[in-house]
Amino acid sequence: MSKRIITISRECGSSGHSIGKEVAQRLNIGFYDKKLIEVASEKSGLDEDFIREYGEYQKPSLLFGLAVDPTFALNTVAGDYVQMSDKIFYLQSEIIREIAESEPCVIVGRCADYILSERNDCLNVFICSDMLSKVEHITSKNGGEQRKVENELKKRDRARAAHYAHYADRKWGAAANYDICLHSGRLGFEKCIEIICNAYKH
Amino acid sequence: MSKRIITISRECGSSGHSIGKEVAQRLNIGFYDKKLIEVASEKSGLDEDFIREYGEYQKPSLLFGLAVDPTFALNTVAGDYVQMSDKIFYLQSEIIREIAESEPCVIVGRCADYILSERNDCLNVFICSDMLSKVEHITSKNGGEQRKVENELKKRDRARAAHYAHYADRKWGAAANYDICLHSGRLGFEKCIEIICNAYKH
Repeated sequence: MSKRIITISRECGSSGHSIGKEVAQRLNIGFYDKKLIEVASEKSGLDEDFIREYGEYQKPSLLFGLAVDPTFALNTVAGDYVQMSDKIFYLQSEIIREIAESEPCVIVGRCADYILSERNDCLNVFICSDMLSKVEHITSKNGGEQRKVENELKKRDRARAAHYAHYADRKWGAAANYDICLHSGRLGFEKCIEIICNAYKH
Repeated sequence: MSKRIITISRECGSSGHSIGKEVAQRLNIGFYDKKLIEVASEKSGLDEDFIREYGEYQKPSLLFGLAVDPTFALNTVAGDYVQMSDKIFYLQSEIIREIAESEPCVIVGRCADYILSERNDCLNVFICSDMLSKVEHITSKNGGEQRKVENELKKRDRARAAHYAHYADRKWGAAANYDICLHSGRLGFEKCIEIICNAYKH
């Protein structure tokens, strides 16, 4: 059957975000990355940067959340104490479900593949790459020392994997969780876009 | 660049073998699965069934190997003790390298992606699927009780993963180890073939 939604999970530096953007453009459908964060920020009153971090990267503890906004991590359901990251996860989940209902689109990150797992019209894609290509990609855009960039990429991916494991109870980047996984470093940017667009139109 | 060799790793019951066979037929290139085992058997004098098992599934211990053929697990290189499974791995590696050198082809399983990792003309594919689709696929072909088939598939995949971890020192089925991973249960047989053929011709 034809798909309606494309979710893109991606390693940092794998060009997964740009691939998703180009796919959405070619298919002429919506693209949700920053826009999703803007909506979550509007709904919650929380800072966008804060949602960006909390909505995709596992943080060490609740203390960090409380330090940022002591009024946020409150009882929300009859005596249940809901952590900051949980609250953001539930908020994002609600928004992602609304978006998926309203229009065909590409959604980047934020456990969208898991959140929409009850729908059968999603094409779930994972984009990865080798460290050399990822570091080159980042340093060519932003500069930076190779070793530091590599450490930062690893740290970010560990936090994404931990966030996914925590909320989806699945292994991030394990092939069996996605419809298609593509290695952008070996296949190239254009080939990844082509494969995703063709699979979507199937 | 265009690829010359396709390696296919696959979960048991995911139709990876049939997909590989059909890809080879459409691309009009060689197909190595059983043929590889036949060559290994000819070269070593070992039974084909034995090579089939030892060449892709991790076995509990050396004792099993010795029980089957006490003369095989001997010193082979200046005092180095080489296990049965090691010997079969080295034998298969040699054959896989020779095949890759001699003709464009599809090679199924046997850590071929790892063995050929120094070549840059390989398209490394992993085929997976959900348990329900895999069990249905197997029982529709061979019959069998659903629960038993599921247990057997899990057991076989665990042994494949352990074999790959042992020899390739990599995680079997982790997206980053392959160029493309495809979920045959969600994409369908035909789509998987199409994606692989197109990526090969790229």
